[in-house]
Amino acid sequence: MYRAPVDEIAFTLKHVCGLSDLQKSARHAELGDDLVDAILTEAGRFAAEEIAPLNAVADKHGTPLADGKVSTPPGWREAYHAWIEGGWNSLTADPESGGQGLPVMMSAAALEMWNSGSMAFAIGPTLTIGAIEAMEKHASEELKAKYLEKLVSGEWMGTMNLTEPQAGSDLNALKAKAERRDDGTYRIFGQKIFITYGDHDLTDNIVHMVLARLPDAPAGTKGISLFLVPKFLVNDDGSLGERNDVKVAGVEHKMGIHGSPTCTMVYGDEGGAIGWLVGEENRGLACMFTMMNNARLAVGIQGLGVAERAYQHALAYALERKQGRAPGETGEGMSPIARHPDIKRMLLGMKARTQVARAICYACAHAIDMSKIAEDDAGKTFWNERASLLTPIAKALPTDFGVEVASLGIQIHGGMGFIEETGAAQHLRDARIAPIYEGTNGIQSIDLVMRKLPLSGGEHIKGFIAELQTVADEVAASNRPEFGAAADRLSASIRDLEDATSFMLSAQADGRVGDALAGATPYLRLAGLTLGGALLAKGALASTGEPAQRLSERTLLARSFCETTMGETAGLKSDILLSAEAIQAFDAEALAS
Amino acid sequence: MYRAPVDEIAFTLKHVCGLSDLQKSARHAELGDDLVDAILTEAGRFAAEEIAPLNAVADKHGTPLADGKVSTPPGWREAYHAWIEGGWNSLTADPESGGQGLPVMMSAAALEMWNSGSMAFAIGPTLTIGAIEAMEKHASEELKAKYLEKLVSGEWMGTMNLTEPQAGSDLNALKAKAERRDDGTYRIFGQKIFITYGDHDLTDNIVHMVLARLPDAPAGTKGISLFLVPKFLVNDDGSLGERNDVKVAGVEHKMGIHGSPTCTMVYGDEGGAIGWLVGEENRGLACMFTMMNNARLAVGIQGLGVAERAYQHALAYALERKQGRAPGETGEGMSPIARHPDIKRMLLGMKARTQVARAICYACAHAIDMSKIAEDDAGKTFWNERASLLTPIAKALPTDFGVEVASLGIQIHGGMGFIEETGAAQHLRDARIAPIYEGTNGIQSIDLVMRKLPLSGGEHIKGFIAELQTVADEVAASNRPEFGAAADRLSASIRDLEDATSFMLSAQADGRVGDALAGATPYLRLAGLTLGGALLAKGALASTGEPAQRLSERTLLARSFCETTMGETAGLKSDILLSAEAIQAFDAEALAS
Repeated sequence: MYRAPVDEIAFTLKHVCGLSDLQKSARHAELGDDLVDAILTEAGRFAAEEIAPLNAVADKHGTPLADGKVSTPPGWREAYHAWIEGGWNSLTADPESGGQGLPVMMSAAALEMWNSGSMAFAIGPTLTIGAIEAMEKHASEELKAKYLEKLVSGEWMGTMNLTEPQAGSDLNALKAKAERRDDGTYRIFGQKIFITYGDHDLTDNIVHMVLARLPDAPAGTKGISLFLVPKFLVNDDGSLGERNDVKVAGVEHKMGIHGSPTCTMVYGDEGGAIGWLVGEENRGLACMFTMMNNARLAVGIQGLGVAERAYQHALAYALERKQGRAPGETGEGMSPIARHPDIKRMLLGMKARTQVARAICYACAHAIDMSKIAEDDAGKTFWNERASLLTPIAKALPTDFGVEVASLGIQIHGGMGFIEETGAAQHLRDARIAPIYEGTNGIQSIDLVMRKLPLSGGEHIKGFIAELQTVADEVAASNRPEFGAAADRLSASIRDLEDATSFMLSAQADGRVGDALAGATPYLRLAGLTLGGALLAKGALASTGEPAQRLSERTLLARSFCETTMGETAGLKSDILLSAEAIQAFDAEALAS
Repeated sequence: MYRAPVDEIAFTLKHVCGLSDLQKSARHAELGDDLVDAILTEAGRFAAEEIAPLNAVADKHGTPLADGKVSTPPGWREAYHAWIEGGWNSLTADPESGGQGLPVMMSAAALEMWNSGSMAFAIGPTLTIGAIEAMEKHASEELKAKYLEKLVSGEWMGTMNLTEPQAGSDLNALKAKAERRDDGTYRIFGQKIFITYGDHDLTDNIVHMVLARLPDAPAGTKGISLFLVPKFLVNDDGSLGERNDVKVAGVEHKMGIHGSPTCTMVYGDEGGAIGWLVGEENRGLACMFTMMNNARLAVGIQGLGVAERAYQHALAYALERKQGRAPGETGEGMSPIARHPDIKRMLLGMKARTQVARAICYACAHAIDMSKIAEDDAGKTFWNERASLLTPIAKALPTDFGVEVASLGIQIHGGMGFIEETGAAQHLRDARIAPIYEGTNGIQSIDLVMRKLPLSGGEHIKGFIAELQTVADEVAASNRPEFGAAADRLSASIRDLEDATSFMLSAQADGRVGDALAGATPYLRLAGLTLGGALLAKGALASTGEPAQRLSERTLLARSFCETTMGETAGLKSDILLSAEAIQAFDAEALAS
């Protein structure tokens, strides 16, 4: 069972991540606290009551392909239609296209809960929303008129088609072809793999966004264009026309998210799939990045959603399961395992990681929203840079945490955790993809180090670190013994982050690119853990107005994260500073057999 | 594909873990280097050629239960019979029972390779070997005469029956009943769960070792007795008689090791299963511990075996898969991903963890062997204590590493890693049970801190740490720049271990049991990482007589482990010293809803 943590989510939005900054803006003037609470409550109800019960069923059933059609698990279609009827597909879309124009923070919060309900279910609409964003920014008015409203309402769904067998992390190698036709359309040819919701029976039509190369395109990523390729052609009156030349050639057998069909798509096997250009020729990658940046945050939220569910699952078991006697307990009978210190460590570790993931994802959403409402250039630059800085962290750390939390959840269940019927294993199997897709976490780390640290000549990251220090100072100034060693540990981690950042900036300044790349993964974790500790502390500082129990819970959570997990930063820093030479010296091709 | 790393295994046995100490002893006088190499080569050949190809097939097929019988995957029966015909089941058994009397080090090495071949296959014989050991030490001559030879040859297999639904980590809660009969036999009643290879079609008979309680037994673990309960009764001439009253009631659907049947066993549903006492009444736990200690090492070796296979799998992919350009490379075309620094980091991390797991398992086996050949009381005490100290580390760290390495292996495969046909996911699904069974890794940590640190009044662990410092000193004295910061990092970790050990010993001396328990898990990891770094360094120091490439590979591996993963020890120490108060204050039952 899953209970939507609406209070915790609302607190994080309002008191940790700055929702009120948006509420004060003209753009979001209608977003009062009552509306926020109503949206969260209803999204949570839907997640818990309508989506969550489908999760295990879908895991068993999968998405079989028969007669060229993919079918979704039992209950999926009904749930999807109830979901779009609730208006959930259109939360952030532009009011001009029929959307509700809500901030990304609100959709992030709702998405968390749907992912807790079922990651395999929630991922489908995520891709539609990406397609909507790409079209809103880059598509012609004609295309928008024909497709956008139905994508926004959810009557049709969208997909993203990037990957090919030889082109995964490296889109330079993309081979799919596009040919110009006299009528302004294009014909698309090629195979795309790993296409999430590439085919399904939830909607009558599917709108594929496909990257392909024109015959005269420059080599590399500067020669890639984006095309809209509908499953069924659309007549001028909006009705469905002929079937387009796009087929699903296979559905993958995956470790997890069995309810999400991962398809191999073949375009143009019978003369060419008809496609329409989105944006300009050869500028497809820029359009795709519009989708990808938000998709990266959305994947981070998958990690968060699964972590929350796995935590609740393990907590319930730990409260019910009795074994042994906890220290200090006397008398007859066994203790719930939740009273054993080693289990407490695991539960706290799960809860803290989940809350860190939540706060980082919402902070990233906040930056995206702020960049949209910023009134001057300086503000726009600042928030664009902040969103750019936080996106790789918000993709990678929460997805790594999703795996760690799900794995701890299995451990708490003991032998039962390994039995599929228990459901704990599914969380790990589902969560394991999130560090891989939408740019592996290694790619995110490289993006952070190579593209984001140099923003504003390195000044943006320095300002960011100074903000973290302010939180540590506030913790110290609060003089609350309940914080334990939190202020000291937080300051120590911030110093680790400063040292590592200096190393990275000088490595790049000196042209030692390999040294920076070798330490990128520990750098992202170091930055993420430090930010996470600061955000937990901020939550504890902000909860002084709340009931005493909440204050003490949040303080304990922040304290224990600072005293346990965040201690990793010392090792991460020394790793970054010391290990680059040895790592680069490793020559796998020359290994003695 | 799996290639048995026979050279690396032989090197680790001989030059890191002290096999020559055994070769010099009277007991193992016949174990010359030629015999060692011949055994390893043939075990490796069998693992690679006969077992490894069955691994994926078994994962898909599972072990279905029909008409009260469990069937094993295709090829399983033939492989098992070829395996016992090769004499592999009897490596360590006493020559008096038909065994070969080889040291545990040799069986550990062979077991590693069989687990790399297939963990689900290798686990079955492991339990038989446990049953053999319990019988050799505790069973009557009559029982031995009837059962031991066939267990040693592998004609019959054995099982261990401890767990019941309410009694997992806490055997006090055990309920299975035993009743005395006038003929000296017992009748056994009760349900046992999670019984590995509880039923199967590999052998004509299965010998169950079952824990149960006599009616007048004291409460708790001092009232548990061990019984031998054969699936088929055995006539005096050794032929099989009637079916005993023991049934398989179900086979679990598990996350991994699908080829290993995990059974629910029901004893005595039709009047009582006939059982024979092993050892004394109410002393069953002591007998079971005989099996369990070696089983713990065997489970550690599972983590090692899967890690090696996952590493080879990922390495092959990283050498073949091309994406992007590695730093410093020019010209056309993409680089094999193995040339990218972030992938090198992962490959090195996998290789180093695997080698650490190997060295720790073999070091534990060495201590067990030394305790058997020690000629005086002091030697016996020392090596018994060393084996006791290393067993929980050898169970927990390699199994955690198995999960970490398998997960990194998936990551290196990118999207392909999540597709089941690739095989990388199976390694993680298989490996995930090892930190749970045979005493969870949390239980191992508690065992290490509460029972093993106090050995010889805390002097044993101090001596152990001093030995590690000797290695660090040798690295420093070697003055080889190729060691980078290894000597410093190793010394720093040793100081972390000293501080954490002092904390643990004083916590226990002061009666602060909860403080010790709260830090047990990070303490085990801290001890394991430090030992691991020292053993890698020992390998590098010992390979000066080898070809230059081997020397430089081993040095690089030790160096990179010290400079990356081992950096965790600083955080683990501060965690242990700081976090006990906050962890114990966490009250899951009182959480605000």
